[in-house]
Amino acid sequence: MPSNLNAGGVGQIFQMLRDGVPRTRAELAKSSGLARSTVATRVDELMRLGLITPVADATSTGGRPPSQFALNPAAKVVVAADIGASHTTVAITDLAGTILAQRAERIAVALGPEPVLSWMVDVATELIAEAGLTRDQVAAVGVGVPGPVAHSTGRPAKPPIMPGWDDFDVPGWVQQHLEVPVLVDNDVNISALGERAAVWAHTDHFIFVKVATGIGAGIISDGRLLRGAQGIAGDLGHVRVPRGADVPCHCGNTGCLEAIASGPAIARSLTAQGIEAAGGDDVVDLVTGGSLEAIQAVRQAGRDLGEVLMASVSLLNPSVIAIGGSMARVGEHLIAGVREVVYTRSMPLATEHLVIVQSGAAGEAAVRGASMLAIEHALSPEILPQSFGFTR
Amino acid sequence: MPSNLNAGGVGQIFQMLRDGVPRTRAELAKSSGLARSTVATRVDELMRLGLITPVADATSTGGRPPSQFALNPAAKVVVAADIGASHTTVAITDLAGTILAQRAERIAVALGPEPVLSWMVDVATELIAEAGLTRDQVAAVGVGVPGPVAHSTGRPAKPPIMPGWDDFDVPGWVQQHLEVPVLVDNDVNISALGERAAVWAHTDHFIFVKVATGIGAGIISDGRLLRGAQGIAGDLGHVRVPRGADVPCHCGNTGCLEAIASGPAIARSLTAQGIEAAGGDDVVDLVTGGSLEAIQAVRQAGRDLGEVLMASVSLLNPSVIAIGGSMARVGEHLIAGVREVVYTRSMPLATEHLVIVQSGAAGEAAVRGASMLAIEHALSPEILPQSFGFTR
Repeated sequence: MPSNLNAGGVGQIFQMLRDGVPRTRAELAKSSGLARSTVATRVDELMRLGLITPVADATSTGGRPPSQFALNPAAKVVVAADIGASHTTVAITDLAGTILAQRAERIAVALGPEPVLSWMVDVATELIAEAGLTRDQVAAVGVGVPGPVAHSTGRPAKPPIMPGWDDFDVPGWVQQHLEVPVLVDNDVNISALGERAAVWAHTDHFIFVKVATGIGAGIISDGRLLRGAQGIAGDLGHVRVPRGADVPCHCGNTGCLEAIASGPAIARSLTAQGIEAAGGDDVVDLVTGGSLEAIQAVRQAGRDLGEVLMASVSLLNPSVIAIGGSMARVGEHLIAGVREVVYTRSMPLATEHLVIVQSGAAGEAAVRGASMLAIEHALSPEILPQSFGFTR
Repeated sequence: MPSNLNAGGVGQIFQMLRDGVPRTRAELAKSSGLARSTVATRVDELMRLGLITPVADATSTGGRPPSQFALNPAAKVVVAADIGASHTTVAITDLAGTILAQRAERIAVALGPEPVLSWMVDVATELIAEAGLTRDQVAAVGVGVPGPVAHSTGRPAKPPIMPGWDDFDVPGWVQQHLEVPVLVDNDVNISALGERAAVWAHTDHFIFVKVATGIGAGIISDGRLLRGAQGIAGDLGHVRVPRGADVPCHCGNTGCLEAIASGPAIARSLTAQGIEAAGGDDVVDLVTGGSLEAIQAVRQAGRDLGEVLMASVSLLNPSVIAIGGSMARVGEHLIAGVREVVYTRSMPLATEHLVIVQSGAAGEAAVRGASMLAIEHALSPEILPQSFGFTR
C-alpha cells in the first residue's frame, strides 16, 4: 500500500477517473502525459486499493482482460443531511451520489443545534447499519441548513430562523460523533449542487432559485459554487425591486424582493383582496384550484423575481435558471412571469441560449447536494489519502 | 532536457513556484508530498531549464548555497495589447508582469481588424528589438478589445463600436504573425485582472467597474475571472434602474443604467439644464472646475450605479469594488453616490468588510491585465511545455 497517493502519478490518475467516465489505459496515458507502463502500474495499484474498478467494455467481445476503468462508487459512502425549518432528511449515498438508505422526519430546527444534530447522528448510525455497512466505510458528512453559513468554518452566521445556531461549531460537534470531515453549507447552495447533478450535469453556468418563505439562489459558475467573500453570495431576497417601493421587509429595509414575492407575501396580498390565504401553501392550493386572483398574484411575483433575475443574467451570463422551493409547485404561472421579464429585458446575446425551467430534482435536490458536498471533499487531492486511511 | 514537464513532479514543483513567492526545498517537499531527494533533483532540472531561479535568503549569512527558489521572471516575455476605441497601447512584459517596453498611439478601432492588428504586430516587433530581445523569447500574446468576446474562440461577438471586427479570428490572425498562443478578452475583464494584480493581489472576490462611454464590470470570484456561458458576464450597463424608467437606451430598451449614468448620459442631462457639455470629458472638466450642477449630476449617476452594484453585492458578495474608466477621474463624487446606496441598502453581513474605492492602477490596468492573461496561459500546466519549446 503506498504511503502517499499524491506521489508518482497515482493521485493524478485517480483524479482523472473520479468523474465516473470509464477510460482506457491509453486514454489515461494521453491525458496525463505519463508513460503507458507507469499508467498500467498505477491503475493496478488503484484497483488493488479498491478506489477504481474495471468497467465492461461495450465493444469488447469477451475473453479479453478489462480495458476500461472508472471510480468504484462502492469504495466508500457518505452521510448527507438536509436540515430544513420543520423537516430533516438524512441519507447514506455511495460515491456516485446514489441514495442507499434515507429517512425524513418532522423535527424543528428551532429546537437548537444539539437536539437536531444528535437526532441526525443517531439516524445516520441506524441507516449505516440497515444498509449493511460499518462506520469506517463513511468518508465524510455533508449538511445543509436553512440559513447563511460562514464557508471557512461551517458555522451558521446570524441565521434568522435558527435560534441557538448562530456561530455553533456544527462540523466540530458532528465530527466528535462520526469521526470524519463534516462540510456545512446553506440549503440553497446544496440544492444548486443537487439539482445540477440530477438534471443539468453538463451545465457549468447555472442558477438555482428557491422561492418559499424566503427567496435565495445558489450560483454555479464555471462548474463551481460561487460563495463570495463571506459565503453569502446568492442572497436575492433582499435586492430592491421597483414594485415593492413602500413595502416593509423583516430585514428592516423596504422594497425587498422577499417582501413582495415570497409565499407569505403573496398570501398577504391575496388576503388584502379579501381572499383568505394564511401562507404559501394556501396560495399553492388556490392556484391549483383555479383562483384567477391567486394565479394573477403568482404571475406578478414571477415578474418581480424576473426583475432581479434579469440583473443576475447580465452579471453572471448563466445558461440555465431552475426555479424550485415550495412556491414552484404552482407550476408554470410563476415561471411565466419570470420569463416575461427576463426575455423582454435582457440583451439578446445573454438570452439566446438561456433556459428558465422548474426544478426537476424537486424534494431530493438538497439531500443529493449535501451528498455531493461530502463526496467532492472526500475525493479532493488534499483529503483523499485521509478519506481512505492512508498516511501522507 | 526532459521531454515532458508533466512527468515525475517537475511540472508540479514548477506550478508551486510560479506565483513568485520564494520557497525552500523542504517547503516544496512538504506541500507536494514528494520525497526530499526527488524535489532536489526537480529543482536542479528547473534551474537548468531557466524556469526558476535561486533567491537570496534574507536570513542566510553568506557562503551557503542558495536555499530558496522562485519563478525566473526573465525566462520568457509576453506581448500585451490594450486596444481601445481611439487609442491602443502595446507593451512587452516579463513573467512577473513588469513592463519592459511600451508604446501608446492614437489609432481608431473602427479602422477594422487588419489595419489595427498589423500596426500592433509591427509595434510589438519593434519593442521586442528595442528591449534587446528576440522573437523566440515571446511565450504568448494577450489582447484586450473594447467589446464582447466569445471566450472559447477569442472572436469579438457583435461588438457595438468595432465595425468589421464581428466574429473576426483575432487569435488566428495574430498567431500567423507572432507564432505563439494569442488570448483575447474584453477591456473590462483585462482591467479587472490588471487592477487586482496591481493593487488587490490578495483579494479573491473583486469587482472592477468601468464607467466611461459605456458601463461594464469585470468580476473576479474565488480568484478567477467570471465569464459566464457566452463570455459576456459583467454586463452592468443594460440592467434596468428605477430612475431611468422612460429614458431610451441605444440598445433598444428603456431605463438602462448606461442611458442615465454613462459619461455622455451625464453630459446630456447637464445640457438639458442649459450647461454645455459635449461628452464625459466635459463633465470631468466641469466637476474639476467646481460646477455644482455637474457635481450633483455625477453624484446622482453614482447613486444609479449604486442601485445595480447593490444587487451585485447581494449576488456576488465581493470584498472590494474598484471604480475606474474615464468618469472615475471626477474623484470622490461618483463613488460617494455609489457608497450612499450600497451601504444604506445592502445586508450588514455583505457590507461589513466591503471596500468601495477608485481604481488605483489607472491607465495601466488594462495593459497589465492583458499581460496577466498571456502569462497565465503560457505557464498553465497544459501549455507550459509548448511555451518553453519542449515536446510532450
